[in-house]
Amino acid sequence: MSQIYGFDRDTAVTPRPDAPGLHDAELYESWRIGMGINGGLLLALAGRALAAELGGGKDGHSDPFSISAYYLSTSRPGPVTVRTETLRRGRTVSTGTASVVQDGEERLRAIATYGDLDGHAGGDVRTSATPPDMPPPESCVGTELAPPEFLKDAPMLDSIELRLDPGTVGWAVGAPTGRGRIQGWLRFPDGREPDPLMLLLAVDTLPPVTFDLGINGWAPTLELTAHVRAKPAPGWLRISHATRNFADGYMEEDAEVWDSTGRLVAQSRQLARVRVPRP
Amino acid sequence: MSQIYGFDRDTAVTPRPDAPGLHDAELYESWRIGMGINGGLLLALAGRALAAELGGGKDGHSDPFSISAYYLSTSRPGPVTVRTETLRRGRTVSTGTASVVQDGEERLRAIATYGDLDGHAGGDVRTSATPPDMPPPESCVGTELAPPEFLKDAPMLDSIELRLDPGTVGWAVGAPTGRGRIQGWLRFPDGREPDPLMLLLAVDTLPPVTFDLGINGWAPTLELTAHVRAKPAPGWLRISHATRNFADGYMEEDAEVWDSTGRLVAQSRQLARVRVPRP
Repeated sequence: MSQIYGFDRDTAVTPRPDAPGLHDAELYESWRIGMGINGGLLLALAGRALAAELGGGKDGHSDPFSISAYYLSTSRPGPVTVRTETLRRGRTVSTGTASVVQDGEERLRAIATYGDLDGHAGGDVRTSATPPDMPPPESCVGTELAPPEFLKDAPMLDSIELRLDPGTVGWAVGAPTGRGRIQGWLRFPDGREPDPLMLLLAVDTLPPVTFDLGINGWAPTLELTAHVRAKPAPGWLRISHATRNFADGYMEEDAEVWDSTGRLVAQSRQLARVRVPRP
Repeated sequence: MSQIYGFDRDTAVTPRPDAPGLHDAELYESWRIGMGINGGLLLALAGRALAAELGGGKDGHSDPFSISAYYLSTSRPGPVTVRTETLRRGRTVSTGTASVVQDGEERLRAIATYGDLDGHAGGDVRTSATPPDMPPPESCVGTELAPPEFLKDAPMLDSIELRLDPGTVGWAVGAPTGRGRIQGWLRFPDGREPDPLMLLLAVDTLPPVTFDLGINGWAPTLELTAHVRAKPAPGWLRISHATRNFADGYMEEDAEVWDSTGRLVAQSRQLARVRVPRP
């Protein structure tokens, strides 16, 4: 019997046979960070429901190409329903929506275009972006080294293995670089290899990049759009995110996810509201 | 009587008093580029309908903060309906959806979060991005210099005044730089000053950036997300867009819009399918 990995268990969606497009799911405390459930986990959950909606059959489209999620209210541990709808079935791509509802309140609304990542693999790859230059994982900083008072607000960090580039953790000891970039390595502690749905989680696993600007408040996500550009190879992922426009209490946060072959497998941008703590 | 500008005339939406959330509008040949109506024009049209939906009253939110549009089928000149729906009304932001339908087919589905750009102006601005360094508009290249066979497929270019940085038009004479960046100046020929809705158009006015990689096919947009970060000052806008991940026939295209004061007023990213012409 094949192993069930934690990420798949925690993002499982159960369709309701009597209600096409309606799925049951559960949000777990083990994916909480700060005040609510991690945005990337919610994106992956919606993404799994959309794969069920848009995939299937020989003409189905199971892989996210682009997904845009708007976060409407804070998600808490507990049951949720995910309602999906197909907007268009095409030859190479299909598009649908997903709505995550909890306690009668909509938590997230997403639109996404899905395709077949294997179907266009092997084409011309002219990526001019370069992977983050970091020490190997064993020389990077595990999140278990964070202060206990921070960790108790971040149970999610036990559900992933995140090792941060020491060059981008100065903020943790009161010495932010001011450059506005944080990066590190990511994998699952139980050995589950990456796939497109993991990439939807991965784009939102790093600490708020404003920490590296010396601003230590949480940064709730208003909107996040992720592009999955290729199926990731097995092994560690590298994630790097940065902001170039922190202004008026908002920031864009651009993330890149690189697989173990050095391929840029996912890119995302989110708009976040930065809570500036009172001095 | 105050002047009606072309952009406002062409993106006007008329609500139906008997059908809340339903608006009538028209798409014009003068905004066609290649096979269909320009994606930025459609985004601005949806944006205007959303401003009507989410704005209004002292607690309304009239300014787009983030809008994500998924392009489902090619839009043609002719009447359309725009259906909007409020998902959430909040204290500082509200979120809604817009659907543009033509001839019974959905052309575009968008989600957007709106707020009050004046309400958070004057905060800390720590933009580390820098405006594009270009010659002044009078030293840049007007699109009227493009070959006639190109221009007849691009009526939109008469609806805007776009002057391209000579350093990024080598592709037009068979000498792309290979860097994957195109930039220029933008204003309306009738003198209409910029505002947030113009920014939604602006992010999609430049030629496909793949031209600068030596790839001359059209690049239809699958998805475009724009963030409006500040109200633009009067005067010319500078727009610069680039790609760093052209791969397997798709590209992300990142645009920045800067106003005349040097403020980064809008950022966008689109995922486009690049049609590689047969040799």
